[in-house]
Amino acid sequence: MVDLLGVFAFALSGGLAGVRRHFDIFGILVLAVVTALGGGMMRDVLLGITPPRGISDLPLIATALAGGLVTFWFSGTLDRARRTILVADALGLGAFAVTGAMTAIQTGHPGIEAIAVGTLTAVGGGVLRDVLSGTVPSVFTRDLYALPALLGAVLTDVAARLHLLDPVVQWVLVLLVFGLRLAALKLHWQAPTPRRLERD
Amino acid sequence: MVDLLGVFAFALSGGLAGVRRHFDIFGILVLAVVTALGGGMMRDVLLGITPPRGISDLPLIATALAGGLVTFWFSGTLDRARRTILVADALGLGAFAVTGAMTAIQTGHPGIEAIAVGTLTAVGGGVLRDVLSGTVPSVFTRDLYALPALLGAVLTDVAARLHLLDPVVQWVLVLLVFGLRLAALKLHWQAPTPRRLERD
Amino acid sequence: MVDLLGVFAFALSGGLAGVRRHFDIFGILVLAVVTALGGGMMRDVLLGITPPRGISDLPLIATALAGGLVTFWFSGTLDRARRTILVADALGLGAFAVTGAMTAIQTGHPGIEAIAVGTLTAVGGGVLRDVLSGTVPSVFTRDLYALPALLGAVLTDVAARLHLLDPVVQWVLVLLVFGLRLAALKLHWQAPTPRRLERD
Repeated sequence: MVDLLGVFAFALSGGLAGVRRHFDIFGILVLAVVTALGGGMMRDVLLGITPPRGISDLPLIATALAGGLVTFWFSGTLDRARRTILVADALGLGAFAVTGAMTAIQTGHPGIEAIAVGTLTAVGGGVLRDVLSGTVPSVFTRDLYALPALLGAVLTDVAARLHLLDPVVQWVLVLLVFGLRLAALKLHWQAPTPRRLERD
Repeated sequence: MVDLLGVFAFALSGGLAGVRRHFDIFGILVLAVVTALGGGMMRDVLLGITPPRGISDLPLIATALAGGLVTFWFSGTLDRARRTILVADALGLGAFAVTGAMTAIQTGHPGIEAIAVGTLTAVGGGVLRDVLSGTVPSVFTRDLYALPALLGAVLTDVAARLHLLDPVVQWVLVLLVFGLRLAALKLHWQAPTPRRLERD
Repeated sequence: MVDLLGVFAFALSGGLAGVRRHFDIFGILVLAVVTALGGGMMRDVLLGITPPRGISDLPLIATALAGGLVTFWFSGTLDRARRTILVADALGLGAFAVTGAMTAIQTGHPGIEAIAVGTLTAVGGGVLRDVLSGTVPSVFTRDLYALPALLGAVLTDVAARLHLLDPVVQWVLVLLVFGLRLAALKLHWQAPTPRRLERD
């Protein structure tokens, strides 16, 4: 369930990025699917799970396509696409940080590997979306992005060690990452930036 | 044979993209090789075939390099690079949709996996070429691109189920995808685009 | 050791690219880590080594983070970031061409595979850095880049066949690639470019 939510949320964010660029229906669907399934495919390939679920799990693929179609059909009413992309993206970020770390733990890779895989799964789909649609990846922009995902993956690993990782805790962790990312956007929480270079 | 054709065609499209940007001979060869072998390497990694043929199959690598060299030597006579790129790309699209799906089927992954892998193999190399040379990927532009590849992968899977996938049928499918893509370009077949967003 | 050097050098080049773009501390760290570990992760995935060292080897990950932090803290004094990026990148190029080829040889893939993997490992991290920070990848720019890496990988394969690949020889090969790349930059060694297209 958390997994399908993450896929749907990222499919919305990818589809909307395509809508904003006036791609046609197929371009929108491709971008939605790549955004929704790309992070999980990286996760599976890194963990040696082949073929990855993103090319074999029909409900997952159907969910990604559905998210893309929704953005196409309702684009006229989504009159503030940019904001909606950011909210959907934040939800996907939370869902994938938790499920990415869980997949690693369940296949025998807890600790540093679960944390790295969880963070990468969460961040990966959005990076693909942004690179493919020609914008600077969100992960590099001013407000906190990678940190909430990293925190979610760390807490998932901790919860698993304490045998606390039941569905309720999973949802709490997803919402925690989601909330932190939204708060960072709303309140413009900014991390330190380097001193300006004098020349160059 | 179909495989080598796809590699050569994508190498031409990649090499020409480098020629247009005035890369030097090595930049052109790198772009040709990445475009020609990138889609197949994604395919092999997703199917768990390691190392992928793109780093181990000498005739394949030599074909990719040959395609790149051709674009370098004949660049003066290829006076409409943009159109030639599109034609070579369409040929590679057809060849890789069919061979990508076939590789999945032959390694025990028919159905949805063959269709997903075939489409991804066909589309992947061109996406790498476009991202690396700084243009919006063809797969997102107005005229049909992913759809012919998807259709070719579906028909390859169907033909394999019906035990009809002999070399003649393979070529017919390659030419069908090629023809559909060229027709889409020539006749500007366009898929529906979303309604304009009012604000944003 | 050579491996850690490559990781640190590429982390510097990635971190500095982030500093130049005024990313915040987390964006800088992400770009440093991706640049430092990306090439090696591609190498491991292509060779079927999962999970790749880049998500499981703590000293490696710590070295990448340290490189990123250094660029953040000392950005004020690195007043010519662009040149420093190029020098760090050249060092990483040499280290990864040698260790990339060695990893392939040690896992039973000498010859063409070691050469392909070595070159790809050396070039991969920098390509990721450049694509993610929105610049044309160094590998395509005027002065020789891929060729020194290719040469380093070939010589590593030759040295291994002659049972000469001890630590001293490894360092000599790393410095050879580093020196060739720096010389190419300094002396503007240029490879031939294609004739201009008349139209297009």
